[in-house]
Amino acid sequence: MNGESTGSVTSGHGSGGRLTQQLTRSILAHFEMAGFETPDKISKFEMEDCAFIGDDAGASDMAVTMDGFTVSPHDFPGGNIGKLAVCGVANDLAVRGVEPLYLTLSLIIEEGLDFAVLDRYMKSSAHTAREGGMRLIAGDTKVVPHGMADKIFIAACAMGKRASRQVLGTGNLREGDILILSTSPGRHGAALAAARFDLDAPGLVSDCALLWPTLKPLLRFDGLRCMRDCTRGGLGTVLCEWAEAASVGVEIAETSIPVSVETNSICDILGFDPLYLASEGCALVAVAPEQAKDCLSLLRQNPISGDAAIIGRVVPDHPRMVGMRTRIGGLRYVDMPVGEILPRIC
Amino acid sequence: MNGESTGSVTSGHGSGGRLTQQLTRSILAHFEMAGFETPDKISKFEMEDCAFIGDDAGASDMAVTMDGFTVSPHDFPGGNIGKLAVCGVANDLAVRGVEPLYLTLSLIIEEGLDFAVLDRYMKSSAHTAREGGMRLIAGDTKVVPHGMADKIFIAACAMGKRASRQVLGTGNLREGDILILSTSPGRHGAALAAARFDLDAPGLVSDCALLWPTLKPLLRFDGLRCMRDCTRGGLGTVLCEWAEAASVGVEIAETSIPVSVETNSICDILGFDPLYLASEGCALVAVAPEQAKDCLSLLRQNPISGDAAIIGRVVPDHPRMVGMRTRIGGLRYVDMPVGEILPRIC
Repeated sequence: MNGESTGSVTSGHGSGGRLTQQLTRSILAHFEMAGFETPDKISKFEMEDCAFIGDDAGASDMAVTMDGFTVSPHDFPGGNIGKLAVCGVANDLAVRGVEPLYLTLSLIIEEGLDFAVLDRYMKSSAHTAREGGMRLIAGDTKVVPHGMADKIFIAACAMGKRASRQVLGTGNLREGDILILSTSPGRHGAALAAARFDLDAPGLVSDCALLWPTLKPLLRFDGLRCMRDCTRGGLGTVLCEWAEAASVGVEIAETSIPVSVETNSICDILGFDPLYLASEGCALVAVAPEQAKDCLSLLRQNPISGDAAIIGRVVPDHPRMVGMRTRIGGLRYVDMPVGEILPRIC
Repeated sequence: MNGESTGSVTSGHGSGGRLTQQLTRSILAHFEMAGFETPDKISKFEMEDCAFIGDDAGASDMAVTMDGFTVSPHDFPGGNIGKLAVCGVANDLAVRGVEPLYLTLSLIIEEGLDFAVLDRYMKSSAHTAREGGMRLIAGDTKVVPHGMADKIFIAACAMGKRASRQVLGTGNLREGDILILSTSPGRHGAALAAARFDLDAPGLVSDCALLWPTLKPLLRFDGLRCMRDCTRGGLGTVLCEWAEAASVGVEIAETSIPVSVETNSICDILGFDPLYLASEGCALVAVAPEQAKDCLSLLRQNPISGDAAIIGRVVPDHPRMVGMRTRIGGLRYVDMPVGEILPRIC
């Protein structure tokens, strides 16, 4: 698209990394060209996890997010596509300080799907919504002939109200900010990889969970800058997006990232980098240095983020780039993945 | 589901008719059982085209709707899946007196889709959104391997603000209300059928269009009861849903329904009943008898509803049922379709 129009979509465009960014930008360009955004506003499509609905003054505190879910396998240790869909959109609100309140679901079902399977997924969606205090308010079902979809795809939309005083976003990032990771990253991707390649991985469970309960208490900090859940593309992609969006340098320490033994084993076997493996219940949090300790303590009070850790900070060096201090003391630059390491993880 | 759990989903469950109703109810049951709605509220899941977001007092006038689009072929006379997705959700708001303002899109793309094709669909979405005054505020793209989807599926969500004084809905229907159809029904379904079965059908174009411009002027009538766009399942399904939801009898006259010559030809060839063919730019409108004439005149001022016609009324007889006076004077009861007459029309 935009000069690429002779090519075709590859699995890499679904990676969440560099190609996904290109694909998204080329789609948004059509909406910009249709006359909505003036040229100098093109960069203003907020590349955040959810959007605030508002008049031009941005007065509203209602926020909306939408995601499609095509995860394979549909059932995995720690969840299924029904639970994942609700956690996925709820977390996109939570990381922007928005309390998830409403849910809509659109199901695309392959003809022949067992009712018992559909029942199981919808039960998971319903229980997760209930747990998260969200009400289902609209939905749709479509059925396509056998072979035209893979069992079931779910698109979900979540809406909620801003509970944070400040609007959280990458625009708030500044030098000295401390980066806290809420839990060990990549467990969702690792669990899916193990399931897909039929690897024996005792104790490896997806981190798929609702983030609002553990992130809500952080909203008391006026030094809270922004948060992001490390889904498709993993922690590495989030770090790169932040550095680029805020034009700041980011430095992390490899040894401080609390990668679990189980995730490390899967990465060793399959040659994956845990930095790029997806999480579905893990948030990166940026906070002012003087509030970092209290922020960390609060996170550690909730079992789903009991292993939260400070992993890095915003630095004056190498703007728009992410550097990682390696185990042996070197500085490795972290970039977004270009291709797809593990398709259909969400 | 609910006693059916040993079966599987059939194409009939995607028809928009009786089986879709059953499928939807069984999914909603999970959300009800998860504890959101008390048993006596089970019937309160509003079976309308969009939902108003509000506190328990229902104070809000923001409305939301969501739909999945799997239309085949993706290009058809009068539109494509990109235009259809935007019209579809915008119209679901429009028929409830809600001005469409915001749009979100979730794309599920099959690996290998040409960028040029994706470009064409997104350009259509963008132009339709622009025409309808809607801003794209969020979106998502997923890519699935070749053979796991049919080119592209789109889920769309639309949000807007209520512009009508009264909340429009089937609960307002009462004896004597006049039913007006905004244009000749079934042209979308007929155009798709012609394309799919490779029939020569000169002049047959989908009615796919934004309804807000022609429905907005009707909001001045305090006797306006409810409106519905006659999509999947067609006019016949909407009539049945209204009769059942409001526990009223409905009577229509076969000769008054402005079915086009082209649609009739397709129905003759394929054995379809135009009552059940989908429209994507045709609304059924219920209005108090004393305002019916003015309402009809206003509709006819807009070219997309220039052939609007009074087709029936709400009657004291046969509550919850729809009777149609046939050409030869008999009364035929109209029921929802049970199976699927034409899969993937939207």
